[in-house]
Amino acid sequence: MSGEDAPAQQQNAVDQKQDTKPTEEPKTEPPKTESAPAGAAEAAATPTATTDKVPEEEAFTYRALVLTGYGGYDKVKLQVKKGKPTLKAGEVLVRVKACGLNFADLMARQGLYDRLPSPPVTPGMECSGVVEAVGEEVTDRKVGDKVMVLNRFGLWQEVAVVQASHTFLIPEGMSFEEAAALPVNYITAYMMLFDFGNLRPNQSILIHAAAGGVGIAATQLCKTVKDVTVFGTASASKHETISQGGVTHPIDYRTKDYVEEVRKISPKGLDIILDPLGGSDTHKAYNLLKPMGKLITYGAANMLAGQKKNLLAVAKNWYHQFSIHTLSLIQGNKSVCGFHLGYLDGETELITQAMDNILDLYKQGKIKPCIDSTWHLEQVGDAMRKMQERNNIGKVILTTEPMPEEEKKEEPKKEDKKDDKKKDDKKKDDKKKDDAKKEEKKDDKKKEEPKKEEEKKEEKKEEPKKEEK
Amino acid sequence: MSGEDAPAQQQNAVDQKQDTKPTEEPKTEPPKTESAPAGAAEAAATPTATTDKVPEEEAFTYRALVLTGYGGYDKVKLQVKKGKPTLKAGEVLVRVKACGLNFADLMARQGLYDRLPSPPVTPGMECSGVVEAVGEEVTDRKVGDKVMVLNRFGLWQEVAVVQASHTFLIPEGMSFEEAAALPVNYITAYMMLFDFGNLRPNQSILIHAAAGGVGIAATQLCKTVKDVTVFGTASASKHETISQGGVTHPIDYRTKDYVEEVRKISPKGLDIILDPLGGSDTHKAYNLLKPMGKLITYGAANMLAGQKKNLLAVAKNWYHQFSIHTLSLIQGNKSVCGFHLGYLDGETELITQAMDNILDLYKQGKIKPCIDSTWHLEQVGDAMRKMQERNNIGKVILTTEPMPEEEKKEEPKKEDKKDDKKKDDKKKDDKKKDDAKKEEKKDDKKKEEPKKEEEKKEEKKEEPKKEEK
Repeated sequence: MSGEDAPAQQQNAVDQKQDTKPTEEPKTEPPKTESAPAGAAEAAATPTATTDKVPEEEAFTYRALVLTGYGGYDKVKLQVKKGKPTLKAGEVLVRVKACGLNFADLMARQGLYDRLPSPPVTPGMECSGVVEAVGEEVTDRKVGDKVMVLNRFGLWQEVAVVQASHTFLIPEGMSFEEAAALPVNYITAYMMLFDFGNLRPNQSILIHAAAGGVGIAATQLCKTVKDVTVFGTASASKHETISQGGVTHPIDYRTKDYVEEVRKISPKGLDIILDPLGGSDTHKAYNLLKPMGKLITYGAANMLAGQKKNLLAVAKNWYHQFSIHTLSLIQGNKSVCGFHLGYLDGETELITQAMDNILDLYKQGKIKPCIDSTWHLEQVGDAMRKMQERNNIGKVILTTEPMPEEEKKEEPKKEDKKDDKKKDDKKKDDKKKDDAKKEEKKDDKKKEEPKKEEEKKEEKKEEPKKEEK
Repeated sequence: MSGEDAPAQQQNAVDQKQDTKPTEEPKTEPPKTESAPAGAAEAAATPTATTDKVPEEEAFTYRALVLTGYGGYDKVKLQVKKGKPTLKAGEVLVRVKACGLNFADLMARQGLYDRLPSPPVTPGMECSGVVEAVGEEVTDRKVGDKVMVLNRFGLWQEVAVVQASHTFLIPEGMSFEEAAALPVNYITAYMMLFDFGNLRPNQSILIHAAAGGVGIAATQLCKTVKDVTVFGTASASKHETISQGGVTHPIDYRTKDYVEEVRKISPKGLDIILDPLGGSDTHKAYNLLKPMGKLITYGAANMLAGQKKNLLAVAKNWYHQFSIHTLSLIQGNKSVCGFHLGYLDGETELITQAMDNILDLYKQGKIKPCIDSTWHLEQVGDAMRKMQERNNIGKVILTTEPMPEEEKKEEPKKEDKKDDKKKDDKKKDDKKKDDAKKEEKKDDKKKEEPKKEEEKKEEKKEEPKKEEK
């Protein structure tokens, strides 16, 4: 197993500028196997290269993103790995096409997510791709199968070895990007709404971050149930999109008190609240529940303030962490649930069942992953930034497609949804004073933007053209 | 409004012996209206007598059980009330036939249940009977309707005035006793299992006090779902009955550690746990949940140790009260819910919906209330004792039928299920050393037993004979 910085990474201007402590990152050191967790069997381990391989197999290389240490966006490096992986029984090798970004990845980078082994390690909980090799005892996957993958970590690389049971066949008509956007967000939303939430017709729900990956998935899933009223928080610029997506009452949490806004329309409160924020927002949510209401908390996004671990934010979140006595639950007839897919990695049956239902809904045209933007592996820092700063509408995706040379040198190519760039820069200044000096320089000089749609033509050709039906 | 001790109560030997502080009980004082809670409109208020009524209406009397002060079984007195009640819009007057006993009534007697106004007050959350008068604006009930009633309190009397929306028509074939046994236990079990619990096929569940009212209702409801594995705790003498009722694995909690017993069969834990105990048992339950498991706590029976408020038990329960951080819920993917029907009294729609479903299941023959024993109003103390000491299998019922003179003088008539009487006495000694001296004397001299089935022939004639179909 070897890892070294790839030439591609040299072209990552962000890394070059910010990476002032090269000794921290063991660029040429092979990743320590001791850092693998006990449950490593379930991880998409960086494929094992055996030293006694024939030259062809040694020549096998692939690019991988590696978290080299906890910290800012620059801690995730693009490296080139050598050696053809070997497969154990039950495993498949997947040639990765696209990867999904999740909040847990951002937390992990700051050292706030205990399901990721210590660095150096390849993050990534979901991806899509094509099965390239199949281990013994694998009967339900074959070479050439298009699959999406859900794994504890290790999927942000061109080649990943995973348990076959962690893969799901991509239905016809679904692009690799959609497939990479689906597993974490939709399984999370599905299990929260239909297992803990027990969502039924005529109920009301509050979805925080309604323009985020889980938010959009949850909104779509709510619309599969009759007459559900969806309150969704998002900044004003995203309201049109989330309204079209099914949010009944969009609320701009930056300018309005969402509790007051909900009470105006639903004085008795709500049946279900999905809370990815944690801290004091969990308290508010609890008080906003109707009798028989369910609060489902699934994150602590409030902990994430700035690019690096913000101890104050973490402490504040911890201090305000919601704690509940059963007597209060009894007198209120309320339910408090916690959900995190990352801690469900042993529950193959539960997950498969949820995924089957989700794919059925997809095939019926009732849900469709919403892609905010797609970024090259080299652009992972900017991709993470976009998500952390809540500038995305829908899913932020990485593609393993090589970044064209001309794109690396060109000015960032604008996509739609960039109209609020100025506001973003302003916000950044307000929010992240610690990092302000470094950040501003970088923002002015080079901010790589996602590759344009036209540049994906080649990949598109490989895929079924049935998305629009 | 007037209340005075009825002759019937004079024959209650228990009361006569234990009631050494007559000044505590304002027997002839009219109940203070200030003691009624803000939501008194929803209470089955002791019917209001107006002083300017004609003599016939003044002559209207009825017997009522009245909690005269917090304390032991003797604090609930049988009194005779005078004056024909008047009805407000939306109310009906019900001639009560049978009443259900609930744990909340026992808690209330000790001053541990804040939904009962201060004494003097008539307890009782459920009853069955016949509509005798209908107030204005009542369109869906008429005189002669057989109904079951669910109310915050006030139903342990011969005549009760309640909101029409708190009544439910008794289906054909259901006896008044069954109807009095149904509302609290079945709505509680139904909402816990199918709203919070979201019970589905192939799941596993632990039901504490599986031979109690809620326990039996929950077991029956579990059997309406395919392949649910039910673990049920009860003392060994009740195992045969609960097995026949649908409990897959009965556990004698007195001789075995139920956590170990469950783990032997279901090493991964359980999907749902119904916890009426509180205190340290809630902690055990939480740890016994599978990922995506739901703990539904609905009482604090552990607080009830002995006939009178046991401050040590209350403090211990409070000290051990389960409190949970959201981070733990998230990492465990668990849900903690609190339920108490007594705090849902404003939620007519939710309750009506649950009741409709329950009555459908009854009509399909899938559920049937299980009556442990039926007691005359004069025997309420013994009825409460039976329940508090966990000697019941199923529901303990009060009947408003007058107690025959000969029965009052006779030795208690044995029913079945009395084989563990000796053990009960032994247990009592162990558990209630505070009250031991008084108790033993009483137990030896007079313990009134429920009237025999034969004595209910007259009432039976009034009822449809379709129960066995």
